[in-house]
Amino acid sequence: MKNDKVLLGHGSGGKLAAELIRNYFIGHFGNPEVFLTDSAVLKFGDAELAFTTDSYVVDPIFFPGGNIGKLAVCGTVNDLAVSGAEPLYLTSGFILEEGFPLLQLEEIVECMAKEAASAGVKIVAGDTKVVPYGKCDKIFINTSGVGLMPKKNRHISFGEKCKPGDKIIINGNIGDHGTAIMASRSQVQFNPPVLSDCSALNGLIDTILKNSDGVRFMRDATRGGLATVLCELASNRSFGISLNENEIPVSEQVNGFCEIYGFDPLYLANEGKVVIVASAEESDKILNIMKAHPLGQNSAIIGELGSEHAKQVTMKTSVGGNRMLDLLAGEQLPRIC
Amino acid sequence: MKNDKVLLGHGSGGKLAAELIRNYFIGHFGNPEVFLTDSAVLKFGDAELAFTTDSYVVDPIFFPGGNIGKLAVCGTVNDLAVSGAEPLYLTSGFILEEGFPLLQLEEIVECMAKEAASAGVKIVAGDTKVVPYGKCDKIFINTSGVGLMPKKNRHISFGEKCKPGDKIIINGNIGDHGTAIMASRSQVQFNPPVLSDCSALNGLIDTILKNSDGVRFMRDATRGGLATVLCELASNRSFGISLNENEIPVSEQVNGFCEIYGFDPLYLANEGKVVIVASAEESDKILNIMKAHPLGQNSAIIGELGSEHAKQVTMKTSVGGNRMLDLLAGEQLPRIC
Repeated sequence: MKNDKVLLGHGSGGKLAAELIRNYFIGHFGNPEVFLTDSAVLKFGDAELAFTTDSYVVDPIFFPGGNIGKLAVCGTVNDLAVSGAEPLYLTSGFILEEGFPLLQLEEIVECMAKEAASAGVKIVAGDTKVVPYGKCDKIFINTSGVGLMPKKNRHISFGEKCKPGDKIIINGNIGDHGTAIMASRSQVQFNPPVLSDCSALNGLIDTILKNSDGVRFMRDATRGGLATVLCELASNRSFGISLNENEIPVSEQVNGFCEIYGFDPLYLANEGKVVIVASAEESDKILNIMKAHPLGQNSAIIGELGSEHAKQVTMKTSVGGNRMLDLLAGEQLPRIC
Repeated sequence: MKNDKVLLGHGSGGKLAAELIRNYFIGHFGNPEVFLTDSAVLKFGDAELAFTTDSYVVDPIFFPGGNIGKLAVCGTVNDLAVSGAEPLYLTSGFILEEGFPLLQLEEIVECMAKEAASAGVKIVAGDTKVVPYGKCDKIFINTSGVGLMPKKNRHISFGEKCKPGDKIIINGNIGDHGTAIMASRSQVQFNPPVLSDCSALNGLIDTILKNSDGVRFMRDATRGGLATVLCELASNRSFGISLNENEIPVSEQVNGFCEIYGFDPLYLANEGKVVIVASAEESDKILNIMKAHPLGQNSAIIGELGSEHAKQVTMKTSVGGNRMLDLLAGEQLPRIC
């Protein structure tokens, strides 16, 4: 322990990352109730705000379907939105490597501005640091965000309202972001190309929450993928989660890529996917609301909560077996976001 | 222009940094009214909040008087405080290099927790990214912060209330942080050591604002130093600023270091110094309040605003001459914060 070092897996969103958060950050900063969720929800007089932060170190910085700037806006907007908040303001902190082309910086900043405008948020403060050549890799961006919690109770982060019988819904194909990044790195060419699903989900989520009170839990499935979100949700709960592999939307291209390269789409990062736990009664209505939205056309009910196998996530595989899912143990894809 | 690249000077807090902000960030993100100040002030229902961000890339990460974690807490607390806000909550975003010793991470996190507690702020959310060995330098930290603007009008950021006759006050010796960092890098030994002045100023500032309504402008003098704060304040204003070099508190050690290495203490970074413009009537009272505070014992009135030489900062030097001060043109000390 004494000579332990940071491993790539500490940034994976999986087991090691959870340990790091528990031992170091919660250990010293306290506040486990807020530190483990996407956003901290804080009271300011009558208002309640959600507050969140994320740093983006994706490699490559330009990828099919987006770039690091688009990711930095969408990712933080999504963290606020899945907390039930209306994302309002972002800050942007840039760490630039000496020699980074200003034209690329401009393209990234332009994209951030466009994405922020389309998501209805303002970028209101910023900071720029430059480090000597070789001391960082091109550009890292931190975005922090604040959003307003609507008066109507939309605190849905922890999943404590979830119960057996609830349905699990996802708003479309999984693994596109991870595949787009990995394909860029390995110079795999798809025809048509696999695009990152990177997108701001606050519009979709707002539509769902305004039209149904059946949402019990929401989280964006980023690092660690769908499996990690569900494993975290089930841990320490009195319910289990059962998935149906046949219902989980994955494109043929992503499936093929995963088979060849040995990845598992369940653990691949997404940047435009939200996992929703909905009450059984409202689940079809919510599914239809989602399907009617441009970012939810391929939505599907992929499983449900049950009283058996508490704390565990199991998946009925397409060949009829049962597979137990666990948190990612190491790091599948460094610098995926 | 087309092939221009990021220079170290773009991170200096000086001329190039100002250009980058104007051309890229304000150009695309808009919001010049908030983007140029320490914190954006935003309305949430009845409440007004200040929101700010800073990334810290200081080298070395441990230095006499502090470490990158202490800096990350103090710097962001100070940005909120000089906006007149009461700092309340911080986020922390870590970018870690693979192989970074966990013991060092723990020391940094522990120090952040201690500093936050002593400044009365909570660290409520975080994020950790790990990049492969060689893709960043040990550890970078982003902290973003929100603070509450008190009901009593404390909007003092822009300096639009400043007028000729106002006095300029600083809360102690300048250049300590810059000197401590540079000495660490060049392995210069001072006896006694020069310690970074890194400290959270919200307590001092709150005491001043609660006891006097004579504060017209406040800013923490970080990257770019005292000279940069005053040059930015004077630019586009109808007043000029005149400083008296003999009144500016600088330790003998820092003066000696600057003479030997060719630095100018006016441009050296500070991490615990606030520059205050106070009305002539209240200036002595404010000075005394500051001197009574542990972080202001060496406070001094160092100059004043005048109607001559509008937009300019001049300094009566210790040998009786007059020197014109300008924004830093390049980068004096990369990775100073």
